[in-house]
Amino acid sequence: MKHVYIEHLQDHIGETVTIKGWVFHRRSSGKLKFIEVRDGTGIVQCVIFKGNVPEEQFQSADNVSLESSVIIEGSVREDKRAPGGCEIDVQTFHVHHHAEDYPITPKEHGEDFLLDRRHLWIRSKRQNAILRVRHTIVKAIRDFFDERGFVLFDAPILTPNAVEGTSTLFETSYFDLGSAYLTQSGQLYGEAGALALGKIYVFGPTFRAEKSKTRRHLTEFWMVEPEMAWYDLNDDMDLAEEFIEYVVQTTLDKRSGELEVLERDLSKLECIQRPFPRISYDEAVAILHKHGKEFDYGNDFGAPDETLISGQFDRPVIVHRYPAEVKAFYMKRDPEDETKALAMDMLAPEGYGEIIGGSQREDDYDTLVRRIREHNLPQDVFEWYLDLRRYGSVPHSGFGLGLERTVAWICKLDHIRETIPFPRTIKRKNP
Amino acid sequence: MKHVYIEHLQDHIGETVTIKGWVFHRRSSGKLKFIEVRDGTGIVQCVIFKGNVPEEQFQSADNVSLESSVIIEGSVREDKRAPGGCEIDVQTFHVHHHAEDYPITPKEHGEDFLLDRRHLWIRSKRQNAILRVRHTIVKAIRDFFDERGFVLFDAPILTPNAVEGTSTLFETSYFDLGSAYLTQSGQLYGEAGALALGKIYVFGPTFRAEKSKTRRHLTEFWMVEPEMAWYDLNDDMDLAEEFIEYVVQTTLDKRSGELEVLERDLSKLECIQRPFPRISYDEAVAILHKHGKEFDYGNDFGAPDETLISGQFDRPVIVHRYPAEVKAFYMKRDPEDETKALAMDMLAPEGYGEIIGGSQREDDYDTLVRRIREHNLPQDVFEWYLDLRRYGSVPHSGFGLGLERTVAWICKLDHIRETIPFPRTIKRKNP
Repeated sequence: MKHVYIEHLQDHIGETVTIKGWVFHRRSSGKLKFIEVRDGTGIVQCVIFKGNVPEEQFQSADNVSLESSVIIEGSVREDKRAPGGCEIDVQTFHVHHHAEDYPITPKEHGEDFLLDRRHLWIRSKRQNAILRVRHTIVKAIRDFFDERGFVLFDAPILTPNAVEGTSTLFETSYFDLGSAYLTQSGQLYGEAGALALGKIYVFGPTFRAEKSKTRRHLTEFWMVEPEMAWYDLNDDMDLAEEFIEYVVQTTLDKRSGELEVLERDLSKLECIQRPFPRISYDEAVAILHKHGKEFDYGNDFGAPDETLISGQFDRPVIVHRYPAEVKAFYMKRDPEDETKALAMDMLAPEGYGEIIGGSQREDDYDTLVRRIREHNLPQDVFEWYLDLRRYGSVPHSGFGLGLERTVAWICKLDHIRETIPFPRTIKRKNP
Repeated sequence: MKHVYIEHLQDHIGETVTIKGWVFHRRSSGKLKFIEVRDGTGIVQCVIFKGNVPEEQFQSADNVSLESSVIIEGSVREDKRAPGGCEIDVQTFHVHHHAEDYPITPKEHGEDFLLDRRHLWIRSKRQNAILRVRHTIVKAIRDFFDERGFVLFDAPILTPNAVEGTSTLFETSYFDLGSAYLTQSGQLYGEAGALALGKIYVFGPTFRAEKSKTRRHLTEFWMVEPEMAWYDLNDDMDLAEEFIEYVVQTTLDKRSGELEVLERDLSKLECIQRPFPRISYDEAVAILHKHGKEFDYGNDFGAPDETLISGQFDRPVIVHRYPAEVKAFYMKRDPEDETKALAMDMLAPEGYGEIIGGSQREDDYDTLVRRIREHNLPQDVFEWYLDLRRYGSVPHSGFGLGLERTVAWICKLDHIRETIPFPRTIKRKNP
């Protein structure tokens, strides 16, 4: 008998098939048992009519516990009211393994209770939907770059130096070579890649040993970082805008069912269309002051500032040209105002804050050496990076997108911990 | 003027375009200068005829150093003999940045010389080709699983326990929670994913702090690990076979130009077609003995054994049903011979050794507890993993493919260090 995944049942209306899955819900009504079965690709209602199956199978359907694994044969019947558009008329009902009492029930559970059982919690309708959306966002990200001639460039995870102190770095002993540190960004390596391959993207896990307990922070999270030779800040912003539109619209297109499970207001995503508003740092500060927010000109924005600024718009807003002092040493200065860096951040709507940070990079050797000194960084560890300005330097730009923040925004989640299979936070490294 | 990437020049024959890139090679012949320019997507010959450009541009073409960045305008002329099928008739020649004396020259360089300059070495024709092949292999891997309904499942990099000692683990301090360890495999997490989502794949960096200095070992490498609910060992082998055929044939299809740069014998890849030979461990041992190789029955195969076995076949060979003692605790035993594990390894041809290792997993709670005890492993850290056998256990299988070994095989490289942008070995963590 043909094993069919639940997501494909609609292609088998009228056929007799086998489904293999787990008991998700059950109820009884005299001579009828209704068993909802999940197989990871969807949920379908299986109807067992007393006369249609052997008596002991009918009885076992009464006793079967939630999350027991089952193998069911039956015919697929169209039913427009059913979630997947069909039901199964059961002919044989086989319990493969009787589950012990399943610990996760419809009642409210505490955060730690669920996170301790993350390996089971991901079976729930809601977590399952989030992980499928995550999958589709990752695929959209990769497809976007692949279709535009970017080459994947896997930067190293183990990096040799702690140039700005070790306070936010995970450190490990590396054979006879001293310490190595888990990467916080692949950008500097990505720049070498862009000058070799034209346009590249780094996409891998990054790490922050930050003592932050907010809903926005994970210690381990994935970041995609495109880097493009011959791109200036405007090209960079154009790409970021096209990129976010593509990711959001593709996810809407492929995962509307999952987003409905999450009760996401789809209209908030449908309007994520280019052009996005672009404002300078100065204009962003003016917005804060206009709304009576205390803010000292020259500082970087905090989360409440970002929420207020992005709250003025129904789509992501790009803020560009920040004061150079609050930005990294490698950012190029604005030739029209040397106090400003050619930096840009994209703030997501609905209070999700910064999802993209990027800049045009300093491409002049002497200037970059000066910046390294001004930032009190050791020049020797940057000699290889300076080589990129010794041998055929070109204007180049790039940005980084935090995957989990993007998933949180698109799914409208309260907490970033639900965006990744096994979240790592300051309080948690298990399971 | 329209900026065109070199790989797209063929679509612009007869047009005047701008290319932006780096000087790869130059030669002179009286009134003609020939400058080969690379832009990361390809190489094109630019022909400068004395009368066609201003005199100072003609002179600058004489002095321009290798790897200087240049912006060139000219018309695209078809030339079947040229590598990309066309040449550029230069109208303006602009040097954007004069490179210092480029350290990598056509002469032989030592291994450390090149690895110290990996950020520049990747600009070479050969390294560039390898990284493009790597990109395509990664994309083929993801497309294969995505098209077959697998969900990407990013397993954690930071893991809580060192159950078999710390000798091959990278360890880091994790806030107030003691130590965390860099993952060696996402498989156990992937099993939780498969029981939640049906079919999943983990694809991320993995780490071995192994003191191995061979040509086959990196301390940081990428691994893809599919895991499927309701799959037995045969299903697992079928999938692995289809997978490798797909990856090799897709790479051949998309990257034949790069494989030619690498002087790869394409006929060795063209024959990677299903079915692959499948032999039992016992049959593999018989091959060794037949060829006069000393080998004690019951041991695992070493690299020379693998080379001898795989050398009998023109495509990958799957060896299955290993002695249980040499395999991991989580592998299910063969019901027809309890001394054997339902394990399978795939050995690549041409001496590249194991590229895939997989198995059907033990799905019986009591048996798995017994195995954990037999292997002297602490049961408490596996309680979450045992939950997968408490709540709706199902037969399930999976395998892991090492990305870099696969790239090395498909490109036929002598050393695995060329398969990744910035290799990490026991002797190297820089740049």
